[in-house]
Amino acid sequence: MTVLDLNADLGEGFGRWRLTDDEALLSVVTSANVACGFHAGDPSTMRRVCELAAARGVRIGAQVSYRDLAGFGRRAMDVPEDELADEIAYQIGALRVFARSAGADVAYVKPHGALYNRTVHDAAQAAAVVTGVLLAGAALPVLGLPGSRLHEAADKAGLPVVAEAFADRAYTSAATLVPRGTEGAVVTDPEAVVARSVRLSRDATVTALTGEDVTVRARSLCLHGDTPGAAALARRVRDALEAAGVRLEAFA
Amino acid sequence: MTVLDLNADLGEGFGRWRLTDDEALLSVVTSANVACGFHAGDPSTMRRVCELAAARGVRIGAQVSYRDLAGFGRRAMDVPEDELADEIAYQIGALRVFARSAGADVAYVKPHGALYNRTVHDAAQAAAVVTGVLLAGAALPVLGLPGSRLHEAADKAGLPVVAEAFADRAYTSAATLVPRGTEGAVVTDPEAVVARSVRLSRDATVTALTGEDVTVRARSLCLHGDTPGAAALARRVRDALEAAGVRLEAFA
Amino acid sequence: MTVLDLNADLGEGFGRWRLTDDEALLSVVTSANVACGFHAGDPSTMRRVCELAAARGVRIGAQVSYRDLAGFGRRAMDVPEDELADEIAYQIGALRVFARSAGADVAYVKPHGALYNRTVHDAAQAAAVVTGVLLAGAALPVLGLPGSRLHEAADKAGLPVVAEAFADRAYTSAATLVPRGTEGAVVTDPEAVVARSVRLSRDATVTALTGEDVTVRARSLCLHGDTPGAAALARRVRDALEAAGVRLEAFA
Amino acid sequence: MTVLDLNADLGEGFGRWRLTDDEALLSVVTSANVACGFHAGDPSTMRRVCELAAARGVRIGAQVSYRDLAGFGRRAMDVPEDELADEIAYQIGALRVFARSAGADVAYVKPHGALYNRTVHDAAQAAAVVTGVLLAGAALPVLGLPGSRLHEAADKAGLPVVAEAFADRAYTSAATLVPRGTEGAVVTDPEAVVARSVRLSRDATVTALTGEDVTVRARSLCLHGDTPGAAALARRVRDALEAAGVRLEAFA
Repeated sequence: MTVLDLNADLGEGFGRWRLTDDEALLSVVTSANVACGFHAGDPSTMRRVCELAAARGVRIGAQVSYRDLAGFGRRAMDVPEDELADEIAYQIGALRVFARSAGADVAYVKPHGALYNRTVHDAAQAAAVVTGVLLAGAALPVLGLPGSRLHEAADKAGLPVVAEAFADRAYTSAATLVPRGTEGAVVTDPEAVVARSVRLSRDATVTALTGEDVTVRARSLCLHGDTPGAAALARRVRDALEAAGVRLEAFA
Repeated sequence: MTVLDLNADLGEGFGRWRLTDDEALLSVVTSANVACGFHAGDPSTMRRVCELAAARGVRIGAQVSYRDLAGFGRRAMDVPEDELADEIAYQIGALRVFARSAGADVAYVKPHGALYNRTVHDAAQAAAVVTGVLLAGAALPVLGLPGSRLHEAADKAGLPVVAEAFADRAYTSAATLVPRGTEGAVVTDPEAVVARSVRLSRDATVTALTGEDVTVRARSLCLHGDTPGAAALARRVRDALEAAGVRLEAFA
Repeated sequence: MTVLDLNADLGEGFGRWRLTDDEALLSVVTSANVACGFHAGDPSTMRRVCELAAARGVRIGAQVSYRDLAGFGRRAMDVPEDELADEIAYQIGALRVFARSAGADVAYVKPHGALYNRTVHDAAQAAAVVTGVLLAGAALPVLGLPGSRLHEAADKAGLPVVAEAFADRAYTSAATLVPRGTEGAVVTDPEAVVARSVRLSRDATVTALTGEDVTVRARSLCLHGDTPGAAALARRVRDALEAAGVRLEAFA
Repeated sequence: MTVLDLNADLGEGFGRWRLTDDEALLSVVTSANVACGFHAGDPSTMRRVCELAAARGVRIGAQVSYRDLAGFGRRAMDVPEDELADEIAYQIGALRVFARSAGADVAYVKPHGALYNRTVHDAAQAAAVVTGVLLAGAALPVLGLPGSRLHEAADKAGLPVVAEAFADRAYTSAATLVPRGTEGAVVTDPEAVVARSVRLSRDATVTALTGEDVTVRARSLCLHGDTPGAAALARRVRDALEAAGVRLEAFA
């Protein structure tokens, strides 16, 4: 029987501003990537999301980012590696307080936005993220793209790696993501997203943009929660997966 | 034999900017109030100061503040109590990562600047700071002014309180601090600061601005490190205390 | 014939976050209080709102604030007066670039949130705001509460003052606002808001919370745009005012 | 007779933090690159530096930057071009208020740090900076490296370009700067810096790192002010230039 984790970015408001429908998504996902204050997320939002997640048995992860509130962490930055490592550790430490006060703990790490994309290819920044996780003092699993420099660095450092897939992103014939901006890079049809989710989880297969089937093995499926209708679609994906006999469960 | 702690604010730079002479002060003090990023302090500075402090056996405390880099935490803010509590917890959690990675831990909490002054009188914000400490999950001692609302709130919540005194600040006949801005509020003559330090620690006595001797009992003496010559004066105070037979040791 | 200005806060997003429905409100108001980056508002949002406002003939005002993105400018701060004045000037100057590049100009100033509330009573901060307006080099009208320290300071400095009223806030028998937090301070029934708007503008009268009618003279009516349904209610108020024969027009 | 401008970065403190010795440098330079709040510089510092510069007849320029206080604008960022343009305009507008209130005006623009380096090669960001200058509504000269993408974009848009040279940086045989990090990239011997300054200004010649003489024509010489001893060295350079008959004067 297939076992799958569902993860989504949560707590991505800041002060007066809200973005993600945290309550709705926490009834869908098994892992919550909680923003830690560098691209989004303020202390009170972090506490609230951790309390809600803990109450529902949803796993809490640190969604670490470049320090860039104005750009929502979506702009690649040439941060020196030692500073980046320290910034990662800082974010994990801050989130840990709220996870623990809610009776849980930070159980994994996932980079956000531009840092996620950059550490797919940039070995130095990937190593810095791993150094930051180690500084934070726990051998936390790193959630990310299979084959990424980040997963290589984590693996080399003895950190568990967890592969994720995207049902709403097009894949190349080499099983990598089609870059955003390319025609067809994002799958917008809800039916297609649901169908691809089921196939990805049950058959480890997705139809590439170029038409052929490719193998994509993932322990976690990433759902998006920052657009209108996102929570409803996430709910549909979950229902379809359960109907298809997939067991939804956070990774160890 | 008198036992005294010497504390000072450290790590109060930010990015490219430096303020405190951290190396020099760490050879003088027994407790380091480390800035946590809200009024000063960036992750790399926090790590460096924690490593230096741990290497020299200096106790690490969280110097928590309002979120106000532009004002260096010196402007009182009407932060709602629940948000303030969460901000305190966030800062403690972030610092803890670096204290622990250096082989030590966050051992106490001391509010900075406007938050320090406000929680002398403001019971609601004092309670919020204590709530933040409790959220951070350890019964950390709270360093502050004897008789302050902060110490009352900490004591009520079961947190240890540690009283501090200031050799470079004038006292009233009621043993409270003369407000800054009042003529004579700050003692600028180095000889006088040294002499007052010795008398405060050995005799628990200080001459008030109005001329009479008053009793001021303190387990810790606060030294300042953010002005030119401050580190040298701190060194002189320490030497004079040791010559006077005072044992310098962090509080438990 | 009664002439009335309708003002609302606009451009109160930041980076990825949106708050106000700027497009909808710009088809209702005659004056746009544009956030300048200190409590909300980023350069691109400022440019966009200025372009939309200029295209529709809506007057552009600088909605100046404390520097407090995390608190949305809603937390009173003890900012030294000279710094506050400089911060006000900075914000006006930044907005002016976008107002002028859109073919318009910054035509007035209105403080936001906690600064608005504080300068009702605090003469020193009120004077600082006025100093900031003067620094910015134009004798801009100051929109605010009649009788406020801000209006007194502006008047004394030779700046025009423009009185505003609130249809969704309760008034005391002395024609001042009932403080938020008091039972009944905010009028939530849309019908009541519409009816009060018409009466305020046509008869300069509002029924106080204590039941009696009081006189409130205002050249501008403040509409709120940061809650769901706000834009629709603003539209209804405008339609009712026009149906009642009120001419809607920005102040000179 | 050779005419030369001397420029330096000024006002690079933030809140409690100071960096540049503004007073000393303003008695040396003819053009002041004033930080505008994005990598350094707060409103009060901006006002003070503008007042000092205007009083001494020093030309005021906008030292525009990425929005990155934590990194002092030294980390390249992938900012979308339209956002970057708006950020540049915002900074110029903010500084203009203080330049004008001091009786002067913003007379030119120079990018700071990572933005300076990136716009040497990156045509898209170079064009964005120029768009920002145009948005700010004046055909301001752009100070920068001859041959840079920034100068190409400025020239194409009809903005005057002003070439600068560096006496404390090594040049290649192609008359470009040797990248920092390369052995010998920075000239640290004060005597050498003084001698190179004179030769650069009088003979438009510098000895490349590889030994041969190369031609470098510059209307402005950049002096550094953010290290100990920098102001004294700047003074020596100025004295040597004047002794050599160079007329020191800001560009038109």
